Amino acid sequence: MSQLEDAITPHERAAAAGAARKADRPLRIAIFGFGTVGSSVARILVESKPDGLELTHVFNRGVARKRVDWAPCGVMWSEDADAVLNSGADVVVELVGGLDPAGAWVRRALENGKSVVTANKKLIAFHGVELERLAAARGGHLKYGAAVAGGIPVIPGLEQGLAGDRIERIEGILNGTCNFILSRMEAGAEYAEVLAEAQKRGYAEADPTEDVGGFDARAKLAILMRLALRVQVDPEEIIPKAITAVTAVDFSYARDLGSTIRQVARANRREGRLAATVGPMLVDRRSPLAWSQGTENMVIASGRYGGDVVFSGHGAGGHPTAVAVVSDLLALAHGSRRVEIPSSPARVGGEFEVPHFIRFLVKDRPGIVAAITGALAAEQINIRAILQKPGYPADGLPFVVTVEPCKSSALKRALEPVRAMDCMLAEPLDLQMLE
Amino acid sequence: MSQLEDAITPHERAAAAGAARKADRPLRIAIFGFGTVGSSVARILVESKPDGLELTHVFNRGVARKRVDWAPCGVMWSEDADAVLNSGADVVVELVGGLDPAGAWVRRALENGKSVVTANKKLIAFHGVELERLAAARGGHLKYGAAVAGGIPVIPGLEQGLAGDRIERIEGILNGTCNFILSRMEAGAEYAEVLAEAQKRGYAEADPTEDVGGFDARAKLAILMRLALRVQVDPEEIIPKAITAVTAVDFSYARDLGSTIRQVARANRREGRLAATVGPMLVDRRSPLAWSQGTENMVIASGRYGGDVVFSGHGAGGHPTAVAVVSDLLALAHGSRRVEIPSSPARVGGEFEVPHFIRFLVKDRPGIVAAITGALAAEQINIRAILQKPGYPADGLPFVVTVEPCKSSALKRALEPVRAMDCMLAEPLDLQMLE
Repeated sequence: MSQLEDAITPHERAAAAGAARKADRPLRIAIFGFGTVGSSVARILVESKPDGLELTHVFNRGVARKRVDWAPCGVMWSEDADAVLNSGADVVVELVGGLDPAGAWVRRALENGKSVVTANKKLIAFHGVELERLAAARGGHLKYGAAVAGGIPVIPGLEQGLAGDRIERIEGILNGTCNFILSRMEAGAEYAEVLAEAQKRGYAEADPTEDVGGFDARAKLAILMRLALRVQVDPEEIIPKAITAVTAVDFSYARDLGSTIRQVARANRREGRLAATVGPMLVDRRSPLAWSQGTENMVIASGRYGGDVVFSGHGAGGHPTAVAVVSDLLALAHGSRRVEIPSSPARVGGEFEVPHFIRFLVKDRPGIVAAITGALAAEQINIRAILQKPGYPADGLPFVVTVEPCKSSALKRALEPVRAMDCMLAEPLDLQMLE
Repeated sequence: MSQLEDAITPHERAAAAGAARKADRPLRIAIFGFGTVGSSVARILVESKPDGLELTHVFNRGVARKRVDWAPCGVMWSEDADAVLNSGADVVVELVGGLDPAGAWVRRALENGKSVVTANKKLIAFHGVELERLAAARGGHLKYGAAVAGGIPVIPGLEQGLAGDRIERIEGILNGTCNFILSRMEAGAEYAEVLAEAQKRGYAEADPTEDVGGFDARAKLAILMRLALRVQVDPEEIIPKAITAVTAVDFSYARDLGSTIRQVARANRREGRLAATVGPMLVDRRSPLAWSQGTENMVIASGRYGGDVVFSGHGAGGHPTAVAVVSDLLALAHGSRRVEIPSSPARVGGEFEVPHFIRFLVKDRPGIVAAITGALAAEQINIRAILQKPGYPADGLPFVVTVEPCKSSALKRALEPVRAMDCMLAEPLDLQMLE
């Protein structure tokens, strides 16, 4: 063994072996999960013939009905995961999603020294750090550019282009389903009818909780926090708020305030404290976040040195997500290593200090505004505006109070007695305002 | 020598050596050019102490006046370029700009086996391919993430995140000076006064030709074309149009059309033909390009599979550009290799087939519109709208004709006789309309 080899780590030796292998033959690709994204990946590999990549295996349950006639005849179609994991494939493209059994397959692939490319945000959000360590120990690589914002290169942007900055804040529209629903509601539709349309178009699942409840976006936010804020957080510490309580009335009041409503995932570090949340928020019409329409995604990263950088585009769908997967495969084929962004475990809270929009729905009687303003005053919360538009019935009257920046916890305390008032016909809808 | 070593190329061996070196000590960084960007790079290296990077040399003419007290005392300040090029520095950060002498220094650094990180768009646009070959031959790396759109990670986005797509079209706001001038004119100011303000603020040079003439943007466009459209073009084949002829009147007519005016650099491939240009263009208010204000930059890449991806942020300035430089340095320190996007030499034309906005300034007399519409009809160009707003004097009357998509060459022929009419008080201003 030469002196040079002595000096390099096992990890580097594996990378060099990868490079050597590259010279000999293309990387053998096994796709796990041949749905919309999987078949788009195969389609790009077949049509574009990117240098150094060869589709060799497709795994899917009941694979017979998945077979396509345009795939190269050498491809092995299999419903035996073990066989493919033990095959000569170099890279497993995991597009099955969810923690189980996808997680077990990814682990086995990495243990066998294969590399893994995945679009599985949940797996990466919950187990990314551990899986990256496993990959490094066995000489493989784990890439997940498709896990957040599909076709928008946010992950390479953070890893490669913004690594030199200190990102202090991140805001994103990370769930296309919610953005489709809310941008339709902005144009006048009601929640239930848009959800039905989204389901018909295949943008929303039969049980839409994962999307509309904010669980999908919080997994993606946790991944972005690792790369941008350099913290490893437990996604379950991020408390999401569902968009289901937003109504057409809220959009009408938002419009009067020069704003609209979007599902936003946000995280920041202030005075050493980390805060993160996901939910419907009031977005100024002049903010880039208000530009996003339909299923578009957007991420804004704010760095200490470079200021705001905006990434936007198609966050979901077969083709855009497949582009991110194929780009990761090309990076592997070219022996491109990730810039390893150091991160450390951290606790995350939900305490922001921002202005709020609170919509009440009441059976009108004297003294309601006095009680609300009194409760806010008791917590030292300043009112910015009170809006009550005419034309609503007294027995179902929506009105809005906006408040100056205050701590989330203080507002929660202030709203507790208000919430209990007998005139309240619904939970007050409290939205953070982005400025 | 082991069998493994036999199988790897000299290039890969050099990379492995780089990785081995990394383990021993940080990369030694020499900054060439200690102006705004250079001192921002030094500031980030000193403040953020990114792992694996050490500032060791600063070269500048008359370096004594550049010395700062916050730099580590071990830094060697020099006005002898040769001494620094022959020193033990591993990476030269070239921030001098221009082709000469910066080009010679970059060449010498690469010949000495050093890596180079540069923000020099002109050098990369004209000599990037040759310099990359030189770097590869000598075992070094050339990185230029800061050369286009400063702090916005467009280059890593294209190289890493969109490598799996086939980009068919690229549009960008690549010059902050022009965007500052035009977004101010949008608010009512005249060209000369905004240019003076931009010069006072340091956004524009005493001789602003490089910026307002479109030469800066075309160099950046040529770089993006290599990464996005995968073609090596001679930047001088891209014909720029200056923004100097745009007046407040044009913004007024643009507004009536739901649009504004921006300096846009655009390139596309249609039916195998490559077209590129830079100049003021009419931009729909709903287009992301209209969102950019002040010195912001923006790039929209349109891929066959992933659709439109938008990148925006601060394209210039010391800190944002320095973030891109430090990010490139980190990529080198981590042994991250570029995804080598194959490109081939190509000729580029200026033939687009797009709608146009043409503003005429005439001494009014009967028959002008008849002559113009006749000239357009002779070239089979369809008129979309004729706008003549009241309130302008007859001896200096501006009016606008917009036309349906037509070939640039056909429109040029149609305007030739019009241009020669004795009633024309100025060259007709012909702007492409982006839709």
